[in-house]
Amino acid sequence: MRPFVHVNVAMSADGKLSTRERRQVRISGSSDFSRVDKIKAESDAVMVGIGTVLADDPSLTVKSAALVAERRAHGKEENPVRIVVDSRARIPLDAALLHKGGGERIIACSRRAERDTIEALSQYATVIIAGDHEVDLPLLLSRLYGRGIRTLMLEGGGTLIWGFFRKGLVDKLTCYIGNMVIGGMQSPTLADGDGYTSESEFPRLSLYGFERMDSGILLTWTVESCTP
Amino acid sequence: MRPFVHVNVAMSADGKLSTRERRQVRISGSSDFSRVDKIKAESDAVMVGIGTVLADDPSLTVKSAALVAERRAHGKEENPVRIVVDSRARIPLDAALLHKGGGERIIACSRRAERDTIEALSQYATVIIAGDHEVDLPLLLSRLYGRGIRTLMLEGGGTLIWGFFRKGLVDKLTCYIGNMVIGGMQSPTLADGDGYTSESEFPRLSLYGFERMDSGILLTWTVESCTP
Repeated sequence: MRPFVHVNVAMSADGKLSTRERRQVRISGSSDFSRVDKIKAESDAVMVGIGTVLADDPSLTVKSAALVAERRAHGKEENPVRIVVDSRARIPLDAALLHKGGGERIIACSRRAERDTIEALSQYATVIIAGDHEVDLPLLLSRLYGRGIRTLMLEGGGTLIWGFFRKGLVDKLTCYIGNMVIGGMQSPTLADGDGYTSESEFPRLSLYGFERMDSGILLTWTVESCTP
Repeated sequence: MRPFVHVNVAMSADGKLSTRERRQVRISGSSDFSRVDKIKAESDAVMVGIGTVLADDPSLTVKSAALVAERRAHGKEENPVRIVVDSRARIPLDAALLHKGGGERIIACSRRAERDTIEALSQYATVIIAGDHEVDLPLLLSRLYGRGIRTLMLEGGGTLIWGFFRKGLVDKLTCYIGNMVIGGMQSPTLADGDGYTSESEFPRLSLYGFERMDSGILLTWTVESCTP
């Protein structure tokens, strides 16, 4: 058993999450911001890859005071469990998400992570070791399920999202498309990694809905088939 | 003066035009196919980059007999002028677009193209030389305008589309988004090349319309601002 996985991203009209230097850019607007905050507040956990932490240093906290109050009224921590997939435990000990706001943090490493680093990290976060070289995502998700996590919001980056698709672990994809062109062969996209080479391997989606939002459009896809 | 430039592409939900091996894949369906054929039939010229010719060997002809008949009824050639941007004149002499169907072909080269190659190509196409190393796109467009071309449909690939955006030469973008994930850091996207590094440089679009089509969605953007 594993949590329901909802991938949520914002990309430019040409499919980029940021510039080639991975500079964080404003792709959506305030309506989308509120929408994302709400999904986050309603999720048991929110996850990013280490690349996103190193590039943007996000806190991954729920921003709306009303949503935080609602979580508390339901007996929850103010933030969902914040999870970083970080095979070699490269996360800086002063990373914002380790310090800002209440709620559990989980760092998911592989056996490549060094013991001292793990020990230091353990002051701020629960460390889960899953996998030899890379983090074994199906195993990690089964461990997270075992810890009571039923809904997981995956916010990126493109390498981690690719890993989730490749293993058949995505249930829903919401993608905000912003009104700009970023360009760049090397700019991060929604799904990076190796990519599929044959059409028969492509995960097939179903367009559940779409709506104009801010200066762009929000697409909601469900995953119809995705063979690991 | 230059032609009105309409970029038309189909990309996967994660923003890829094809696989990392540039294998042509079916992203849209029959409704989108008809839509694209109609834009093509209504354009004075259709353009692709040499990468697309080498990867897919497209004929770029109008497929619908009715649309061809309509063009003829208006005293036009059966196909719009077919243009390849090909700085070094690498197009194979047996490329489909040089042989299939009626209508003019133009190969746009830079001064890097060898004289013998140009001479051989001249049997099948008009060769325009514009630019020293790369094809000078603004100069090329002004030459095309001088030849009576008022509307140009640009079909890709991502490198050429990037070149057009970078020079502020795009007026309209239609982007069909298909219901699949292709993935791949190295897979071609709508706008490749170097990409912008600063938010102030991004071309800004306006979402003109959107409609569900086949198993995906068609987005129509106009270009609001794009500083070369």
